[in-house]
Amino acid sequence: MERILVTYHLSAPAGAPQSALAARAESIAVEQSIEMPLSAVREQRVLDDYVGRVESVTPLAPGLHCVKIALSAGTLCDDPGQLMNMLFGNTSLQPDVELVDVELGPAVMAAFPGPRFGIAGLRQLTGASGRTLTCSALKPQGSSPARLAAIARSLALAGIDIIKDDHGIADQAYAPFAERVKAVQAAVAGANRETGGRTLYAPSLSGGPSRLAAQAAVLRDEGAGLALIAPMIVGLPAFAELVATLGVPVLAHPALGGAARIAPPLLIGRLFRLFGADAVIYPNHGGRFSYTPQTCRDIAAAARGAWGHVRPALPVPAGGMSLERVPEMLDFYGKDTALLIGGGLLAAKDALQDRARDFVTAVARAI
Amino acid sequence: MERILVTYHLSAPAGAPQSALAARAESIAVEQSIEMPLSAVREQRVLDDYVGRVESVTPLAPGLHCVKIALSAGTLCDDPGQLMNMLFGNTSLQPDVELVDVELGPAVMAAFPGPRFGIAGLRQLTGASGRTLTCSALKPQGSSPARLAAIARSLALAGIDIIKDDHGIADQAYAPFAERVKAVQAAVAGANRETGGRTLYAPSLSGGPSRLAAQAAVLRDEGAGLALIAPMIVGLPAFAELVATLGVPVLAHPALGGAARIAPPLLIGRLFRLFGADAVIYPNHGGRFSYTPQTCRDIAAAARGAWGHVRPALPVPAGGMSLERVPEMLDFYGKDTALLIGGGLLAAKDALQDRARDFVTAVARAI
Repeated sequence: MERILVTYHLSAPAGAPQSALAARAESIAVEQSIEMPLSAVREQRVLDDYVGRVESVTPLAPGLHCVKIALSAGTLCDDPGQLMNMLFGNTSLQPDVELVDVELGPAVMAAFPGPRFGIAGLRQLTGASGRTLTCSALKPQGSSPARLAAIARSLALAGIDIIKDDHGIADQAYAPFAERVKAVQAAVAGANRETGGRTLYAPSLSGGPSRLAAQAAVLRDEGAGLALIAPMIVGLPAFAELVATLGVPVLAHPALGGAARIAPPLLIGRLFRLFGADAVIYPNHGGRFSYTPQTCRDIAAAARGAWGHVRPALPVPAGGMSLERVPEMLDFYGKDTALLIGGGLLAAKDALQDRARDFVTAVARAI
Repeated sequence: MERILVTYHLSAPAGAPQSALAARAESIAVEQSIEMPLSAVREQRVLDDYVGRVESVTPLAPGLHCVKIALSAGTLCDDPGQLMNMLFGNTSLQPDVELVDVELGPAVMAAFPGPRFGIAGLRQLTGASGRTLTCSALKPQGSSPARLAAIARSLALAGIDIIKDDHGIADQAYAPFAERVKAVQAAVAGANRETGGRTLYAPSLSGGPSRLAAQAAVLRDEGAGLALIAPMIVGLPAFAELVATLGVPVLAHPALGGAARIAPPLLIGRLFRLFGADAVIYPNHGGRFSYTPQTCRDIAAAARGAWGHVRPALPVPAGGMSLERVPEMLDFYGKDTALLIGGGLLAAKDALQDRARDFVTAVARAI
């Protein structure tokens, strides 16, 4: 029976005896597998094949321990939800445990195709080869489709590679999804015709399965070239199912994903990618959010590192970035990245197109 | 423009100046609304109608502050995902903030029907009137449909009101969903015919929208009377959409819900209920989990308290409960509750039916 190896970080009072740590690790292994006392199990094959096994408990720092548990791959299905359930379902309710990493065996890996386009596909679609990509956002919340389309036109004329809806823009009365996507995509397509560019627009898709399907149909009808989806908002199983049939690359947004006690490089970098994200947006260090440089480096590495058949996904650091930081970000992340500047461009108001062009130039200059 | 009032708890260094707290509260209000610098906003109506407003910042304890922010109801849609997105999407990425509570206005409330059955509906379907309900679980992971059906038969013969799949049981090779639900429901229906009882079986539904729809069809075809769903695993929008058409009451399971920095009474008690859960399972204090008695009391109050048109949902405390604790739990929760004992009954092995009957008797005796 194939096993998957899950790494947790366990907090315990400094000086806790090894026996207490071993017992706590054992309780996690049972919780994440058969979820009942071993003494109540009646079949030997359940004990052999399905009970989680503690592989190691090693100290990391005073009060912090690394626990590795081998879970049975037999308890999984080809469903991201069930994978999350077995990795962390009930243990997520325990404040002393963080889910840090997982090694999946071939049978589990085969169930998840990963990104359909990946970095290479995004480069091909945007025509951005051999350089970092540029990305910006349509804001603010409350704007009409016409206003968002005007912003999109300016950004596309400036040569931004990817223009995404702000992740809070959904299907509100002031900018209904179908009307907005039609207006913005027309503006982007128009600008592309004028410049010969290949700017892609990523509408934000949201809602339950029916609404998501209807929005996907609009996206296709209007010819939008990308989609923005927040996997933790729509749910990982719905995300994976949508991605499988969407026909365009998907940018994953981390909304609601940071609250989970799951290490960001695992959740945003590896799992979003495994479940089909072609690009992963995340808060860069030094902006409005508090991720450290090391966390950001680890997210980027997790998103684009070699991983079996799973195509590399494009890291998209964001969250309060500015034009001034472009050289430093280029240096930090290298070329297989998209830099996302939203508000920092929009703050130029009437000079939006000029500032967006400065952004494009600053990135191009670094080739 | 209707506003919703959101309560966050904000951690800050003890002695942080009021100006720093006010600025941090302001940044949350912007992050959860228009997500860009106010100075970059070009339309006055966006500033007036859509930017979040800090209503108050009050000290709770050294280093902990209560921040109340009024968000525009206009940024919402009739979608649980978008509600979560605006309540906590990006701010979930900030470790210093906990989402604690929300007051929704009439326009938002009207978008969410809440439980279709609620406590009264569950009492009617099970025939359990004027007393606490009893609930147990089918385990362990790895068991065949026949074995799970045998356990279900014993529990149903003993008169348990609700029998649910263990939440980790999905659509695995050793117990495929359709085969399992058929076998277990037949066993429960057979026992009901013998006893004249009305035990309900809740299969665990999981997966993406297609698999969920297929499983819902099986549930209906086989005549199972309930469903178990983990909203944070399938995603809140998919949960709400499924609940709307399922035709049977839904037990919400908290898997993956505890990791979020969202207060459990809000997430499990109020939001799961608002999105359609007829009963909410949660870890009781003093078992395998670490919720305090006060948290458990607050979850129960949130689940069953009066709340506009939203029917009360049944609190189902669980997680390592035992027969010995029944009197104390009855005393703590009162009658509008279901007590869930899983492993504690199964540990009786061959005497499962007797121990389950002791559970039923202990609860009945308390009338």
